[in-house]
Amino acid sequence: MRIESAAIPSAPDLLLADWARTMRRSVLRQMIAVVSQPGVLSFAGGLPAADLFPAADYAQAVAYVLESDPRALQYSPPYPPLKAHISHLMAQRGVTCAAEDIFITTGAQQALNVLAQMLLNRGGQVVLEEIVYTGIQQVVAPMQPEILTVPTDLETGMDVDAVAALLAGGARPAFIYVIPEAHNPLGVSLSVEKRYRLVELARHYQTPIVEDDAYGFLIYGSDRQNGRLPQRQPLRALEPDWVFYVGSFSKILAPALRLGWMAAPRALTPKLTVVKEAGDLETSALTQRAVARYLDEGLLPDHVAHLRQAYQQRRDMMLAALELYFPREARWTKPDAGMFIWVEFPSDVDCIRLLDAAVATEHVAYIPGHAFAAPGVDASHCLRLSFSNCPPDQIADGIRRLARVLC
Amino acid sequence: MRIESAAIPSAPDLLLADWARTMRRSVLRQMIAVVSQPGVLSFAGGLPAADLFPAADYAQAVAYVLESDPRALQYSPPYPPLKAHISHLMAQRGVTCAAEDIFITTGAQQALNVLAQMLLNRGGQVVLEEIVYTGIQQVVAPMQPEILTVPTDLETGMDVDAVAALLAGGARPAFIYVIPEAHNPLGVSLSVEKRYRLVELARHYQTPIVEDDAYGFLIYGSDRQNGRLPQRQPLRALEPDWVFYVGSFSKILAPALRLGWMAAPRALTPKLTVVKEAGDLETSALTQRAVARYLDEGLLPDHVAHLRQAYQQRRDMMLAALELYFPREARWTKPDAGMFIWVEFPSDVDCIRLLDAAVATEHVAYIPGHAFAAPGVDASHCLRLSFSNCPPDQIADGIRRLARVLC
Repeated sequence: MRIESAAIPSAPDLLLADWARTMRRSVLRQMIAVVSQPGVLSFAGGLPAADLFPAADYAQAVAYVLESDPRALQYSPPYPPLKAHISHLMAQRGVTCAAEDIFITTGAQQALNVLAQMLLNRGGQVVLEEIVYTGIQQVVAPMQPEILTVPTDLETGMDVDAVAALLAGGARPAFIYVIPEAHNPLGVSLSVEKRYRLVELARHYQTPIVEDDAYGFLIYGSDRQNGRLPQRQPLRALEPDWVFYVGSFSKILAPALRLGWMAAPRALTPKLTVVKEAGDLETSALTQRAVARYLDEGLLPDHVAHLRQAYQQRRDMMLAALELYFPREARWTKPDAGMFIWVEFPSDVDCIRLLDAAVATEHVAYIPGHAFAAPGVDASHCLRLSFSNCPPDQIADGIRRLARVLC
Repeated sequence: MRIESAAIPSAPDLLLADWARTMRRSVLRQMIAVVSQPGVLSFAGGLPAADLFPAADYAQAVAYVLESDPRALQYSPPYPPLKAHISHLMAQRGVTCAAEDIFITTGAQQALNVLAQMLLNRGGQVVLEEIVYTGIQQVVAPMQPEILTVPTDLETGMDVDAVAALLAGGARPAFIYVIPEAHNPLGVSLSVEKRYRLVELARHYQTPIVEDDAYGFLIYGSDRQNGRLPQRQPLRALEPDWVFYVGSFSKILAPALRLGWMAAPRALTPKLTVVKEAGDLETSALTQRAVARYLDEGLLPDHVAHLRQAYQQRRDMMLAALELYFPREARWTKPDAGMFIWVEFPSDVDCIRLLDAAVATEHVAYIPGHAFAAPGVDASHCLRLSFSNCPPDQIADGIRRLARVLC
């Protein structure tokens, strides 16, 4: 299956904006649609475990809010008790920020979108990793930016030397985008040393970092530390002025809430508000109140601890199966957080071409690496595996079948 | 109170995108925050009646979906049964479009945003009325367009002759924006004759119309016509190719659902999808399923009929009070749909200045007209009154108190 990032033909006669005429499809989203077939074991989608959603508890929270709060269905400004809860969650990640510094968004994607609109001029520069979350590429596309890429080490994360070289060489990006924790799709986390160096660069060059922390609450074992903060702190904890932190409830509660947030300098709130309102007026008052109610009940810590254990178990099974069935020439990340493992084969293995056989013959799916590649980057010998939404007892056999196709 | 559309100061040192540096606040949203005080009767906010929200029925729908559908909390593509329901709703408004032509959005505002991003180049032209929904001004702002304005007749709506003159004079707008039904803030609906002329212009000049039909299901008395279609049909019913229809559940169910849709040429769906995904990935799977469940139950027709009656009653009371208490020199619209009445005073009445006294002395609030004025348009002698969210027994007295300040 060769799904390319093809230009989409326009409707007849209709004159579209320039960038929209050359707009490209999301390869990732197309692929997920193609491989989502009954009977196919999917390591493809970046989906949290559906069997672990707290559906009953959330239903109770919604029912409570709809019965008790007449504003729950109305237009309403951001809900202060939810901001206070998020400020408390941030503190658990080592980030000090007041409830007033929390800006509620319709999922983390909207936070990225608002920040890009606010920071990036048409034709401006951004720094992305060569292998990067597809959503950020979609966000910057309308501004037709110059994308400056840096490599990523599979054990220590983004190549900060390469960032330094770009900046020293005169690059002036509108922002540097990074997922320091459990990178999507790479699964790697940024080393502590690199975190300090990266924020130092941001300060020195007065260049904002957009820190996407969608998986930061899913560091395995971080709930076993008896209240001590994990050693790895978000970049925002190290540098409050130049780091715009983006968080999400999608991976710790549920994606369908479409609830995220950012922590940005408070002076920017009026501008962020204008851009966000232009996008969707406001984030659902009902969802904000229902999640606040769920958090009031104190249900989140146990739920997230359970998620971490379940994902850690699934990761263990996938890593063990990879050791057993995949060839020595392949390399893969060993994530200690999040939902993904990245596999690199020798360069003659064509993971795009082989996906057809994997789905048709072995009934197992993955996402070829090129879906995540920045423009001009070749990742056709790589693939992303997601272990988060698989039945644990099918992981080993799925990897065994995949190996028959790929190895 | 003089809340101007002031530029927002930037955060120190941070280099923002050009348009963001000169970004202006929404006067409307600021005003609503200022006049929302305990003890103040508000004719200000554009809020549907909170006492009429179907909270219990919606709670049941959410509970059902969360219990029965394991995909309700997951990432999920647009929900086909909801699209089918919307297609059926559109048919009731006289619009023929298949479920596949329905594009689900996070409220109507997102639909406007996606369309503007897709159609409008930086520095391009758009046609707006002189008095116009503020949300569309926020949507086009990043593209820094040339805004071509046309007047609006308080009895027949947008001045279509003025549109024709612009187009004949060489203007080539990316789109013409219009609320044909129960204009916000004017309350007026576009005459049938003007509807035909407007879509004929769109065809002739191959210029898209963005039809914002947020209030189209709230035409009073339209449920008493024994199944006959109302004489006034949406522009989309008259011209499927050049009219992009935008609809919303905010005014017929609840704003906090953040659920809207558009009907656009099917060939554009892939591009619309890319722009929408960049904004917020997708619209809540839970909300889509819960609203579909509510619609499955057949609860909407009676609910909307009840809304129409309630709003008609509140409008009647406000019009009667205006006749009684407001001076002959003032003119106002007589809406037969929606939530708003627009009042024009003689040009020496300063509705911006007088708002202070109205709130402080008479404890009643409205929105001065300048909040809705396109750049360069003076509407300081005008105001918008909303009757939808007031206790009916307070409307007459509120208008009486308002008259003491304004007349």
